[in-house]
Amino acid sequence: MPNLTPVTTDTAPGAAGHYSQGMIAGQTLYISGQLPVLPDRSPLADMSFEAQAEQAIANMLAILTAAGGTTQNLARVTAYIVGVENWPRFNAVYARMLPDARPARTVVPVPELHYGYLVEIDAVALLDAAHG
Amino acid sequence: MPNLTPVTTDTAPGAAGHYSQGMIAGQTLYISGQLPVLPDRSPLADMSFEAQAEQAIANMLAILTAAGGTTQNLARVTAYIVGVENWPRFNAVYARMLPDARPARTVVPVPELHYGYLVEIDAVALLDAAHG
Amino acid sequence: MPNLTPVTTDTAPGAAGHYSQGMIAGQTLYISGQLPVLPDRSPLADMSFEAQAEQAIANMLAILTAAGGTTQNLARVTAYIVGVENWPRFNAVYARMLPDARPARTVVPVPELHYGYLVEIDAVALLDAAHG
Repeated sequence: MPNLTPVTTDTAPGAAGHYSQGMIAGQTLYISGQLPVLPDRSPLADMSFEAQAEQAIANMLAILTAAGGTTQNLARVTAYIVGVENWPRFNAVYARMLPDARPARTVVPVPELHYGYLVEIDAVALLDAAHG
Repeated sequence: MPNLTPVTTDTAPGAAGHYSQGMIAGQTLYISGQLPVLPDRSPLADMSFEAQAEQAIANMLAILTAAGGTTQNLARVTAYIVGVENWPRFNAVYARMLPDARPARTVVPVPELHYGYLVEIDAVALLDAAHG
Repeated sequence: MPNLTPVTTDTAPGAAGHYSQGMIAGQTLYISGQLPVLPDRSPLADMSFEAQAEQAIANMLAILTAAGGTTQNLARVTAYIVGVENWPRFNAVYARMLPDARPARTVVPVPELHYGYLVEIDAVALLDAAHG
């Protein structure tokens, strides 16, 4: 049997399509792209870039926590942002929310995102070895 | 010696540049970006979004199969689409073709793709442990 | 303790924000998005596409080397390029710089990159098992 386990948590918005919030493959956790949506699925498209970044990062961290990880387990984060001029704002919010971790990161400018959002975040983490 | 093995199959289009269709690194399979191209390299750029999505997903799944995996092994899928308004169409085709698996997923809107294509798919899978 | 180790080297440009140049998670190395910047952080935005591609790839390879890897360890490369018409130029520079390796690859067209750059590269590698 493949050693993969989906992650499901109501501390982050439920999947809006045919995917899991996260998938644990062996010890590696893959977190789906997270948008600026509240866990109850209220959209934040009218909010500032900073508020959107904060919520998208919070959703990513909630799935990480649900899988048993902390920011110390993050290996890579990819951020998709509308408007490369938002890069410094993204970096500032991100540094504040992950003060003790500096995973590898790529910031990818995109022309648009679903529903007019300005930022989407996905991530890869290496979870601690299972305790016996 | 590094424990990496390229995947080559004629059930998916051959690589059009300097890359392998897939690369197995340990137990992890990385599948290269797949476009809506037939295995004989006939392009489908004039086809509907749905037909393009179906072929790109089929190519990804063919490489997965060639590496010994099934959809149960998929950990993450990233879909690059032109026109975020195509998101529901992408999700519908994808759900139909992967009925029993919900890997982590990110859908990334892009301004354009090679040759005017509308969708490109890449993926990561955790293969089953090698049999002794 | 999580089994993650950041990679830091002065043979590639230092991180411009809240991230590490690379992160080793178990045996897997994740390399952050690399832009056409010299190790001393001089920008190359005014250079040709080819010169930019060469520097971004060189930075990625420098971080790979600093982590103890070679191109034989590369599992996946993702290239973000401005202008899909630059695909053949990217492929030519890349093939010249990685003559003996063909990792899985996705080339993602983007509308723009930071500071007007035309190309950004990130990568995943499987490092050799630690020697005892």
